[in-house]
Amino acid sequence: MTKIAADPSHPRYQSLLLRHRLEEAEKKGMLAGSALIAHGRGEAFDYLLGEQTIPSAMNATQHALSLLQSARRPVISLNGNAVALAGKELLQLAHKLNCAVEVNIFYRTPERMESLLNHLAEINQQESLGVEVLGAEPDARIPGLEGPRASCTRSGIYDADVILVPLEDGDRCEALVAMGKTVVVIDLNPLSRTAQTASVTIVDELTRVVTNMIFLLESSEKTTPTDSYDNQEIVRQSLDHILTFFES
Amino acid sequence: MTKIAADPSHPRYQSLLLRHRLEEAEKKGMLAGSALIAHGRGEAFDYLLGEQTIPSAMNATQHALSLLQSARRPVISLNGNAVALAGKELLQLAHKLNCAVEVNIFYRTPERMESLLNHLAEINQQESLGVEVLGAEPDARIPGLEGPRASCTRSGIYDADVILVPLEDGDRCEALVAMGKTVVVIDLNPLSRTAQTASVTIVDELTRVVTNMIFLLESSEKTTPTDSYDNQEIVRQSLDHILTFFES
Repeated sequence: MTKIAADPSHPRYQSLLLRHRLEEAEKKGMLAGSALIAHGRGEAFDYLLGEQTIPSAMNATQHALSLLQSARRPVISLNGNAVALAGKELLQLAHKLNCAVEVNIFYRTPERMESLLNHLAEINQQESLGVEVLGAEPDARIPGLEGPRASCTRSGIYDADVILVPLEDGDRCEALVAMGKTVVVIDLNPLSRTAQTASVTIVDELTRVVTNMIFLLESSEKTTPTDSYDNQEIVRQSLDHILTFFES
Repeated sequence: MTKIAADPSHPRYQSLLLRHRLEEAEKKGMLAGSALIAHGRGEAFDYLLGEQTIPSAMNATQHALSLLQSARRPVISLNGNAVALAGKELLQLAHKLNCAVEVNIFYRTPERMESLLNHLAEINQQESLGVEVLGAEPDARIPGLEGPRASCTRSGIYDADVILVPLEDGDRCEALVAMGKTVVVIDLNPLSRTAQTASVTIVDELTRVVTNMIFLLESSEKTTPTDSYDNQEIVRQSLDHILTFFES
């Protein structure tokens, strides 16, 4: 098991903490077989960002937040890694945004769904959040996708106008955009199909993004989305940052 | 469990095959807790290389092979991921080079050592290779390292002049170089301390490197190392390749 350094000032503290959360989640059966490998890919890209929120990512985060705050029907879609890494923080965010969350996983099995839903119910109770958690009884399908990964809930993802999907795969991101939704993704790889397809792409690490969003919600007035936001430019700036990292 | 596409021409076949090998190895207790995350980091860097052997990596591979062929006492150091991903191919390479392998793992436990040694013994028997497998009874220490990770075998790593260490961590790579050894590493991250410290850095994916080495051994005359090899230049060329990938 990963040992967590007792001292949060340890240079690897955050990284070890996230690994520890994944290990705990794995023991509870919350993760897919590919979860740790996917996390490792993220670690590599985060290393190229300098393990920090870069300015363009903060701009995207602010814009995403204004969209979620102005939405008619916002929802946060959660997969296994998102729940494992930031389940509590994501429910706190949903509570502050007064929106539902929906568990929507790529490799859907009854056991994984139950484990994830139980974990979220526990957090809801411990933190007295009362966030609506959807996903247990899907009653709609995302057009253009096949199999269990198309399943969703009508009052959640299906009817949402703005959807925050951390760590989404390219196919589903495309399908959600094709439904006409505003899709906000968190993806450490600016070259991924998800990052390239989304309406708003936050190239940053999940727990940092959620912490930033909660901080922004607590510290500033509600903002309205600007028309001048240019997601292609935001993604390009994150690529430039990585290029500078390689060149330095 | 990862399903392997039945068709080797499937675009993700190789990637899924490697994941499958890691899953099998995990079931046998061969891997450390951080093994899958480390593999994911490698996947990300391999993606940036275009999942191919780039020309500078092939140059490094050829030079590494000439050093191993000309060595007085070459050895191949094996950790959990190396055995899981390319155990058979690495033993075939050792057989062709007429050198020993030594199991030398960072997170050393008796259970992991036994599982790795048993797996290699099985391959040795099935393939009739007769490669000497060291590591079960360490009787020397790598200077400058603390704890179990310093343990090694006198007739293996300790006395070797040229050592091939796939997937090595930075501390151990530095310690081996400090012992005066010629250290050949395989590392997909050209910016890692391992890649920057080694005598010869092959920025390529392990199974491709071993396949290339075996092909070169079977298809060409024994070559002698050239004095003109410049590892810094080789690493720089791999960085240039990645930069081009980002810019394209």
